[in-house]
Amino acid sequence: MAQPAFDRPDATGLTRKIAENSASLTFDALPRDVVSIAKCCLIDWLGVTLAGATEPLSEILQEQAKDEGAREQATVIGGGFKSSLTQAALLNGSASHALDYDDVNLTMPGHPTVPVVPAILALAERDGIDGKAFIAAFIAGVEAECRIGALMGESHYQKGWHTTGTVGTFGAAAGAAHMLGLDTDTCVSVYGIAGTQAAGLKSNFGTMCKPLHAGNAAANGLSAALLGAKGFTSNPEILECVQGFGDTQTEEFQPDLALDGLGERFHARGILFKYHAACYGTHAAIEAATKIRAEHNLTPDRIEKIELRVPESYLKMCNILEPTTGLEAKFSLRVTAAMGLAGENTAKIANYNEDLCTDGTIVNLRDKTTVVPEAKFEHANSEVIVSTQDGLVFRQHSDASIPEDDQDRQWFRLSSKFRDMAEGSIGLDKADAVVEAVGKLEDQASLEEIAELCRG
Amino acid sequence: MAQPAFDRPDATGLTRKIAENSASLTFDALPRDVVSIAKCCLIDWLGVTLAGATEPLSEILQEQAKDEGAREQATVIGGGFKSSLTQAALLNGSASHALDYDDVNLTMPGHPTVPVVPAILALAERDGIDGKAFIAAFIAGVEAECRIGALMGESHYQKGWHTTGTVGTFGAAAGAAHMLGLDTDTCVSVYGIAGTQAAGLKSNFGTMCKPLHAGNAAANGLSAALLGAKGFTSNPEILECVQGFGDTQTEEFQPDLALDGLGERFHARGILFKYHAACYGTHAAIEAATKIRAEHNLTPDRIEKIELRVPESYLKMCNILEPTTGLEAKFSLRVTAAMGLAGENTAKIANYNEDLCTDGTIVNLRDKTTVVPEAKFEHANSEVIVSTQDGLVFRQHSDASIPEDDQDRQWFRLSSKFRDMAEGSIGLDKADAVVEAVGKLEDQASLEEIAELCRG
Repeated sequence: MAQPAFDRPDATGLTRKIAENSASLTFDALPRDVVSIAKCCLIDWLGVTLAGATEPLSEILQEQAKDEGAREQATVIGGGFKSSLTQAALLNGSASHALDYDDVNLTMPGHPTVPVVPAILALAERDGIDGKAFIAAFIAGVEAECRIGALMGESHYQKGWHTTGTVGTFGAAAGAAHMLGLDTDTCVSVYGIAGTQAAGLKSNFGTMCKPLHAGNAAANGLSAALLGAKGFTSNPEILECVQGFGDTQTEEFQPDLALDGLGERFHARGILFKYHAACYGTHAAIEAATKIRAEHNLTPDRIEKIELRVPESYLKMCNILEPTTGLEAKFSLRVTAAMGLAGENTAKIANYNEDLCTDGTIVNLRDKTTVVPEAKFEHANSEVIVSTQDGLVFRQHSDASIPEDDQDRQWFRLSSKFRDMAEGSIGLDKADAVVEAVGKLEDQASLEEIAELCRG
Repeated sequence: MAQPAFDRPDATGLTRKIAENSASLTFDALPRDVVSIAKCCLIDWLGVTLAGATEPLSEILQEQAKDEGAREQATVIGGGFKSSLTQAALLNGSASHALDYDDVNLTMPGHPTVPVVPAILALAERDGIDGKAFIAAFIAGVEAECRIGALMGESHYQKGWHTTGTVGTFGAAAGAAHMLGLDTDTCVSVYGIAGTQAAGLKSNFGTMCKPLHAGNAAANGLSAALLGAKGFTSNPEILECVQGFGDTQTEEFQPDLALDGLGERFHARGILFKYHAACYGTHAAIEAATKIRAEHNLTPDRIEKIELRVPESYLKMCNILEPTTGLEAKFSLRVTAAMGLAGENTAKIANYNEDLCTDGTIVNLRDKTTVVPEAKFEHANSEVIVSTQDGLVFRQHSDASIPEDDQDRQWFRLSSKFRDMAEGSIGLDKADAVVEAVGKLEDQASLEEIAELCRG
């Protein structure tokens, strides 16, 4: 029945190859930095989920889940209750993407952790899975979704599909299938079930549906794995067949990119974290400003003028000149760079508020700032040029599209972000306990303690 | 944020117009034949669901639902238990499409009842909704999905989307929203939530995923209505906006057809029922053969030769010359026409079996039959020409694409089909009670009795 799409020989067996790769992945074969990245993803995910769990959209979904009822199998992070596997995956996936403050992978391109962790965390709780198996399942999920994202190319996202929702469904399915120990044949079925449920339209950005896409990806991917394990059947060539996932949803089908470095290269290494609770376009400028302050021991009172050189498109994206609300401040290059130069904590969501917009130091720095478009800058690149009253000029360029290669530094920064995100919901003592537990994730006999600490 | 797709002024306000039409529909304004059609759809749906509930795919989904647990809110038809609203909708929607023996609408084009009834039946049970409100909600759902199907044109299905799964999600959402009494503004949100979850790939035809698409449409549409009622937000122009449902999934966007006769013409009138448990391509020939037998009191022993004139494409679709299994017999024009001429019950699934394929009378008629392609025949048209040993020739043409206009006759035939489908699961006494209850649906104070009788 199924035929290779577009008559391309390089697509033959594609679904099976990707499924085989994720099914055969083991913890022992993982490089040390990849294990560290997995732990970074989990601590970051727990933080953004705890903070997102009290957003209105999360509360609606929690109410809906309670209306329906379910067996208490898995923790609703920050929700204070347990629900069934797929309900927990739906709620946790949606909450974790509610603030758009979760990690990113530019190959996918989308948010890699929010579909995968909710699916495998729920399963891990129910089945008493240990930390090593959790890490392996996570990396299996991320590999699958990033490779399928590469397959679909820019066209998929450009046409209007929200990759985190669509391609993320495969990530959740692959992660859950790995944790269930399914063989390649069964994984291939799981992919077919996942692909036929994958959905999410970008025209819903700016509404509660955007986070829902991540929740649906987690729940549907998990459900696909559970059904596949019970013998549910599907097309075994869902990625490459005529009228399959690729054929219907991209004009830029790239099997070569999907298979590039299969089993050798880890796409988890391309994961970027958000350290600032503002639009991603402001991040490079914040990083550069923070570095200038730290390296030159520069205080705001010494500053005469500031120039921000940014990609041209950012002038329409995040250049609100005189923001008056917290939300507007997140889209203001001038205010966010001022926060960096003033030593404000840009990671903390609560710091973006009306008081910030009228704060004397911030407004003073803001008004000394000019934003200049720089044609040669790629996405996520910015330069900050600070002139001091005593005639010095400090220049700092930053590229927020390059993953951190110092895993200790990354862990330190993410632990700090986690504490900021978690404090309001579970308090600092529990937050510290979570940091310690996730830091030793590979030694944990189960995920139970972590889930319980983050129950909220 | 949202803009009209393709710069077409006729698309402006489209989502709202369709939502307003379904939200404002009332039982009292429904023509009498439309009410009759709704009852026909329900009795037919109950029959195919009872029969489909014991299929392997239904058993897997039931097991999965029991693993997850849920509040007992709505009956799993033929499953012998209750589950939550959306679990019941998922299970009932999947079971009802399991045998591909459910009704069809060529405007949608797809299966109109399997997404809608599971969503509204579950709600009706939980909330004690009466028969009139049930009928109105059903027609509201069918109107929405047929109009959105018309909007998407042939291109949507041809590209690889399973319309029953995709467009059906809107039908379930519109039906559930009507039953919840949501106003137009809220309905518009519900459509946005539904559209972003709509999914289902035709490359999964022939696998367990095909029926799952109907179940997902029912569950996701219902969920969209429940979330919308709680204030969940979405893009208010999901059908017509850039990167919306139309923009991403059709190259043949037709707002004029979607709005044609809005509020006046009822797409329910275009619903076709399957009276024979075989491939739809065999139906016209079966009808013609049955008519010849009845009108001329013709017995098999008098027949010398048979000619079947069918659309050319049917020679590749349903022309297995000498079938040996029940499944093969369903795709055999020669055997199914022979059943019609021999007076066999072609509605009953169990009658398509190995014994049929070796039955003396059937094999004798089969071997006297020639299948001839007829270029001028459209889909679902066939002619049967029987020559008798005493030199007579009987010709009968049949067109299975025209809805029945005699509602009493339709009800009689569907009641009979229902008894065949239901007997094995609930017995004839209960089946008769269901026929009586559905026959007086507009007088029922609730759907409770019907659901309980069909619990299985």
